[in-house]
Amino acid sequence: MLYSMTMIDATTLARRIRVASGSEPGDLVLTGGRVANVFTGTVLKADIVVADGWIAGVGPFEWDAAERIDLEGRTVIPGLIDAHMHVESTLLVPAQLAAVVVPRGTSTIIADPHEIANVMGVAGVELLIEAGKGLALDIFYMASSCVPAMSWEHAGAVLDAREIERLLANPRVLGLAEMMNFPGVLAGDPEVLAKLEVAMRQHAIIDGHAPGLGGRDLVAYAAAGIRSDHESTDAAEAAAKGALGMLVQVREGSAARNLDAMLPRLVQDTMGEWCLCTDDVYPDELLELGHLDGMLKRIVAAGVDPVRAVRHASLVPARHYGLTDRGAVVPGRRADLVVVDDLVDFTVGLVVTGGRIVARDGTFTAPIGGGDIPLANTVHLGPLDESAFRLPLSADTATVIGIVPDQIITRREHRAVKTTDGWWSFDPSLDVVLIASIERHRASGSMGVGLVSGFGFRRHGAIGSSVAHDSHNLVVAGTNATDMLACARALEETGGGFVAAAGGVITAMLPLPVAGLLSTKPAEEVRRQLREVRAAARELGCPLATPFGTLSFLPLSVIPELRITDQGLFDVGQQEFVGATASHEEP
Amino acid sequence: MLYSMTMIDATTLARRIRVASGSEPGDLVLTGGRVANVFTGTVLKADIVVADGWIAGVGPFEWDAAERIDLEGRTVIPGLIDAHMHVESTLLVPAQLAAVVVPRGTSTIIADPHEIANVMGVAGVELLIEAGKGLALDIFYMASSCVPAMSWEHAGAVLDAREIERLLANPRVLGLAEMMNFPGVLAGDPEVLAKLEVAMRQHAIIDGHAPGLGGRDLVAYAAAGIRSDHESTDAAEAAAKGALGMLVQVREGSAARNLDAMLPRLVQDTMGEWCLCTDDVYPDELLELGHLDGMLKRIVAAGVDPVRAVRHASLVPARHYGLTDRGAVVPGRRADLVVVDDLVDFTVGLVVTGGRIVARDGTFTAPIGGGDIPLANTVHLGPLDESAFRLPLSADTATVIGIVPDQIITRREHRAVKTTDGWWSFDPSLDVVLIASIERHRASGSMGVGLVSGFGFRRHGAIGSSVAHDSHNLVVAGTNATDMLACARALEETGGGFVAAAGGVITAMLPLPVAGLLSTKPAEEVRRQLREVRAAARELGCPLATPFGTLSFLPLSVIPELRITDQGLFDVGQQEFVGATASHEEP
Repeated sequence: MLYSMTMIDATTLARRIRVASGSEPGDLVLTGGRVANVFTGTVLKADIVVADGWIAGVGPFEWDAAERIDLEGRTVIPGLIDAHMHVESTLLVPAQLAAVVVPRGTSTIIADPHEIANVMGVAGVELLIEAGKGLALDIFYMASSCVPAMSWEHAGAVLDAREIERLLANPRVLGLAEMMNFPGVLAGDPEVLAKLEVAMRQHAIIDGHAPGLGGRDLVAYAAAGIRSDHESTDAAEAAAKGALGMLVQVREGSAARNLDAMLPRLVQDTMGEWCLCTDDVYPDELLELGHLDGMLKRIVAAGVDPVRAVRHASLVPARHYGLTDRGAVVPGRRADLVVVDDLVDFTVGLVVTGGRIVARDGTFTAPIGGGDIPLANTVHLGPLDESAFRLPLSADTATVIGIVPDQIITRREHRAVKTTDGWWSFDPSLDVVLIASIERHRASGSMGVGLVSGFGFRRHGAIGSSVAHDSHNLVVAGTNATDMLACARALEETGGGFVAAAGGVITAMLPLPVAGLLSTKPAEEVRRQLREVRAAARELGCPLATPFGTLSFLPLSVIPELRITDQGLFDVGQQEFVGATASHEEP
Repeated sequence: MLYSMTMIDATTLARRIRVASGSEPGDLVLTGGRVANVFTGTVLKADIVVADGWIAGVGPFEWDAAERIDLEGRTVIPGLIDAHMHVESTLLVPAQLAAVVVPRGTSTIIADPHEIANVMGVAGVELLIEAGKGLALDIFYMASSCVPAMSWEHAGAVLDAREIERLLANPRVLGLAEMMNFPGVLAGDPEVLAKLEVAMRQHAIIDGHAPGLGGRDLVAYAAAGIRSDHESTDAAEAAAKGALGMLVQVREGSAARNLDAMLPRLVQDTMGEWCLCTDDVYPDELLELGHLDGMLKRIVAAGVDPVRAVRHASLVPARHYGLTDRGAVVPGRRADLVVVDDLVDFTVGLVVTGGRIVARDGTFTAPIGGGDIPLANTVHLGPLDESAFRLPLSADTATVIGIVPDQIITRREHRAVKTTDGWWSFDPSLDVVLIASIERHRASGSMGVGLVSGFGFRRHGAIGSSVAHDSHNLVVAGTNATDMLACARALEETGGGFVAAAGGVITAMLPLPVAGLLSTKPAEEVRRQLREVRAAARELGCPLATPFGTLSFLPLSVIPELRITDQGLFDVGQQEFVGATASHEEP
């Protein structure tokens, strides 16, 4: 029910037994190396023989095979598992993601397709599953539990309990994805419980998401059958979850970096069960900082026994998600093998997944592959002209979304603004620009406009994105209607992406034609395009390190304090829509 | 797919959350105690609140409930799990087994219904499943992999791959039971591989049984997907299996006691994954020596950290078998709770399973319960009279099965015998008696007769059994045809059991009317009857501690050296039938 597509049949089974016995050559033998045994915690000299994608033999025995590689004393660890990732955060389609992370030693990812589900629903999840067929990277999915994030949101789709059930029937879907609506769980919201029930009846794993939850509320959240969490920023909070039997998914991604905080408890071994995840990670960071290999290096440097660290990046998450065919270098498991120079730096050399050699010395050597990806444009806008990008103001101060650099939270600020003829107008000295959220799934014409501070634009211009959590309507920030409209039009024409405009002209664009979320290009090209759009934003005066990251989170209606949605400004704390000023009529 | 019948629905889920939150009283709260946390390895003061069979809350919080019990400082551990048991070895039906082991802290058993499957096939397994419905003890089954033990055996049923598949569809069946035919695995026997394939395709767990296997053969056995073993008598052998990712099921039963040998490696923590099992255990030993509670006490006395020991008797096997609803005292798991006085003696006080109080201070307090058990007589004999119980001999020496006290193996011996008119005849000084195996499933009249030494009969008499591994044909040993026929007739009339006869009269009987394997009586009564039949055997001169145990293993055609079957004497080493003498004609 849960496994990869590695062949399971009596013929390959019979051959595997013969290969192990030495009566028939295997496909590949790794000799002269050592093997990290995640069951015993030891590292021992052993050869490994592979047949038909599976490990046939491990041990101090002579095996013959079609291909023989001498590891010259290097160490083999199991393929690494990222226990929670939004593939969409990488901007890469699965095949291109594989080409980046597989050479880093990752062989399996447990993904929450939350973003594409918000755009395309079940079809989006199925699109990713199709696109991942036959890859060197094995991606499993959890059924996104909170689509849309808030019931009133104008997302592209709704996943109710029935759709969750449909997704769970897919062998690539392992359970219910992070239950972000923890207030709904605690309040016994019937729709939330219906989703939990569907997962429980199928004995599927249920992932959690409960930042800051503790005490009796955390107990109640665990009582609901939620079995993991990746949101702790504090080690004591994480350990409290671990003590309740939740798998602590230690997160180190682009949007949140929690590893350092967790290290002392990983060293002390007082965390309960734990594993590694990235949650959201940008493609340039994957290329530059690595993936789980980089985390392992830091964990071991902190003092965790290396084989124990590897166990928590392989066997522990494999078991948790019912992937009993992997997670260890022992006979009868999938041949997901990662050769590292040593258990200190975790510099990855050879990588074998599903029995195939797919990377050498950091370079992906397998065909890129992947299934066909339909590129139907998902950006559908209602009637739109420059008149939409303006805000009537009756005072010289306004309620403004305050960006907090490098954080997802925002502040509700009250700031001085400039008005001209009763309309907001740009003043480079005030660091306040217009922000608009434009419904883009059903061309409804729904659109909200507000103000935001912190983008630092000193020149006329605008930036826009079709990645806009969680509903992924268009979000555009700018100083003037012409540039903002140019951004919206460019996103509409290309099917989405990140875009910058100045003087009515598009100055840079990273196209994301797959659901307005993903590029089809290789990671290096996506990085280049990302640098271009960031440079274009910097050119406008923006000081933020990741302006499009910041922009894409401004509509996130579940995180405090103030958000822009296509229905207007939303105060998360008060749970109400607010105007930019007390009086908010057309002048 | 895998769980117990504990309720899974949104209504109880909603209540569980409310109870955890403290906004509604639970069903039961245990206060004033400590909880062994198998995730963190700690023991902490905490209350536990239960709702609808599940643990709703654990922690230092006040909970209200319909029933409140003060634990006065005692410690709560999770319900214990016996990872491999043949329920039939206890001679008890599930409901009566529950009444013995639940007060000892056992809440879950993974059973291989190998014996009843040999008599009744799939229907036998289904009978046990039905009989176990709603009990305080949760019994799961593995689909017996080797029925019959040898292809030529006249067992009551054959389980081929198709029947295995049918069994695996039952939610109470977790996988494929111990693959005893390891030579068949290594040789790639197509029927064996077909069974493994069926289990693998369903991603079901496959249990192993590989006594003495090591080196490359063990690697090949592991490569076949076999994930556990309980047959190691030597700790190094067990650790080699553990290093290959097999779950080492440390066995301490009536027929084999391996715990002492394993203790040093459990203390060193060099075993890999391990858990506890009994395999075969007699009812009197369960009553007198305890079950897993007794093993835990010895493991902790040897120096294993108590919470770690408990983890291997609960969470480790629960996970291995996919029973993710249990194995730990944390919210959102089945309320299988065992209160022990301390983590030294593991003296069990209160036991809660599925949220119900089912035992106190060693006494089972729940209704015995259990489903209806059909008592159709399964003992069907062909025409039989005294003339069947004789052996023509042409010499004064004969090939004889030599009993090895307290072991399952036998010796092929050549011994002096007495003959009268060309027939074997009894001589009390020679310690050789007649042994017969009589086909009893299809009344075919097939019957084998031979000689056995070691029963020590000095008086005229016979003993008989319908428990006779693995085909469970009748086995009768005796000095004369009259008593042997009396035993066979008594077994035929009662539907099976253990019986003794002397002077043509039945002197004692333990009826086992369920498939000729199980009593329906309470364990204490079965023990009394067992003492009676043993006393009757002792009365005949038998010095063996468990004469019926010894008798029942004499037909076991897969263990060396010489065996009695309904088709004659079988030499396991030579894999051939042999006569009692070179010349074997009627005189």
